[in-house]
Amino acid sequence: MKNISFLMKYKDADIYIKRDDLLGFSFGGNKVRIVEKVILDMKKKGCDHLISYGSRTSNLNRAAAHLAEREGFSCTVIFKEDGREGMPFNEWFVKESGAESIYCGPDRVRETVEGALRKAEELGKKPYYIYGTPDGTGNEAVLTEAYTEAYDEILEFEVSEGISFDHIFLASGTGMTQSGLMAGAISHGHKREIVGISVARDEKKGTEAIKRALYARLHRETDLRIHFLDGYRSGGYGASDQEVRELCRHMLSGHGLPLDPVYTGKAFSGMLREIDRKKLSGPQLFIHTGGLPGVFDAACKDMLS
Amino acid sequence: MKNISFLMKYKDADIYIKRDDLLGFSFGGNKVRIVEKVILDMKKKGCDHLISYGSRTSNLNRAAAHLAEREGFSCTVIFKEDGREGMPFNEWFVKESGAESIYCGPDRVRETVEGALRKAEELGKKPYYIYGTPDGTGNEAVLTEAYTEAYDEILEFEVSEGISFDHIFLASGTGMTQSGLMAGAISHGHKREIVGISVARDEKKGTEAIKRALYARLHRETDLRIHFLDGYRSGGYGASDQEVRELCRHMLSGHGLPLDPVYTGKAFSGMLREIDRKKLSGPQLFIHTGGLPGVFDAACKDMLS
Repeated sequence: MKNISFLMKYKDADIYIKRDDLLGFSFGGNKVRIVEKVILDMKKKGCDHLISYGSRTSNLNRAAAHLAEREGFSCTVIFKEDGREGMPFNEWFVKESGAESIYCGPDRVRETVEGALRKAEELGKKPYYIYGTPDGTGNEAVLTEAYTEAYDEILEFEVSEGISFDHIFLASGTGMTQSGLMAGAISHGHKREIVGISVARDEKKGTEAIKRALYARLHRETDLRIHFLDGYRSGGYGASDQEVRELCRHMLSGHGLPLDPVYTGKAFSGMLREIDRKKLSGPQLFIHTGGLPGVFDAACKDMLS
Repeated sequence: MKNISFLMKYKDADIYIKRDDLLGFSFGGNKVRIVEKVILDMKKKGCDHLISYGSRTSNLNRAAAHLAEREGFSCTVIFKEDGREGMPFNEWFVKESGAESIYCGPDRVRETVEGALRKAEELGKKPYYIYGTPDGTGNEAVLTEAYTEAYDEILEFEVSEGISFDHIFLASGTGMTQSGLMAGAISHGHKREIVGISVARDEKKGTEAIKRALYARLHRETDLRIHFLDGYRSGGYGASDQEVRELCRHMLSGHGLPLDPVYTGKAFSGMLREIDRKKLSGPQLFIHTGGLPGVFDAACKDMLS
């Protein structure tokens, strides 16, 4: 499960990569690891219907649909309507799965979740909303668990190789992956920087979500500084710029590494710029959080443009 | 590199899978392993320009373009013209790489290869045609090497787990992967069935190519029977049928396993039908030979239909 290896030298930094895109279930990625923990929690609570929510490009939604089907659970996937033309691959894979797909505007999420919960109950199911309560909070302890474990995998690797990563970089959206890693660091008393490169939220919103998740996980306040960088968003969620797209092209063709321009590509680009800015040297770790369908979404978009 | 694990029970068979789709370079797959050996051979011979040939959906072409770029070699990819609309992802990734793409009809391959060799030489390069001579033979010993090694990985797994695979199933196109595995079995004196499910060629043509490759690899005749099944081609190269597509859908949604309907999906379907037909029981191995871009090609096609 570790999947950590040396990737490339960049200036004075040695970039290592943790390939969680290669987990082997449903195109891999952090969301598969996270939903595996959700499934365990569902079993513990006797639930048999999973409700997920996210954008039409959401890897979480796709992981939820596939893992629910594997377990024989029914599943409702709620997509945030965005009015965009063309169907992203993650949306397609959800629609091809056994999950029910529904759509709602961003201002109607709570009611839609409540409706889905009610409907499942009426069908005799015991439903579980992936984020907790219908307002989307309360399940942070479960959603962060996978990457607290992943932190231990990183430690094992460091011990076995006799190296120590100065920084850990990753794409950060809702912050659950970053919070999990940070909780791991905190529990070991480590002070190293775990740097989330925001793919959407501004620093304030992102930092608050991580604080909340850390409290849910650790049951105490922490003084570990939260590094949630919002300067590499290249136009916000789902968007990207020429520089990031060119980096993705280069990393795939020249290093065989698939990065998508809206999640991991932004994070990788942000990491390189941080290495430049702070003149980092020595071993740095990048966590590849998956999102392979986005690599193909981007290719489709480029083909048509 | 082994990547072997238990996948699922099917009737009395225990299906194990070797995930060579998860190699981690350029969407993985057997062709990446095979081209890695080509690159080593190029270095041994002092070559610095790789020429590849294949269909527009060819994973070999894409692996060649990406591995050549990684090495800093120049590369010419020759695509077989097929007049089909829409661009397959493998063709797209080649065009996005640093490789030069050229197209030719299936009756003009030799001349096109000769032209590409000449042009590279004129530019001061030392070119290397992936299949050997311009008529497409002569390099079987190199092209089969990777899966002779893979056979040893399978053995290692069997020894460490205390099991023995009755049959090894895989998608078979030009037969290089199958020949490599068979050479491994022969060198160990093993008689087990290595079953290639043809994705295109008929039994006669497929068997002859494998015989030729085995001779090139082993320098002697062999009496190991060649199992190259052409009854599961579902319409031939690049085609597929409803049953295979439904199996692909089911394996992705319910088992998290991405299969494409023109290579690995056909092979997986063929394996299940062979298990039925021959009432196989106990451990059977399926080699996932990759071809992830084809999963997305198929999704695109289904979306539009």
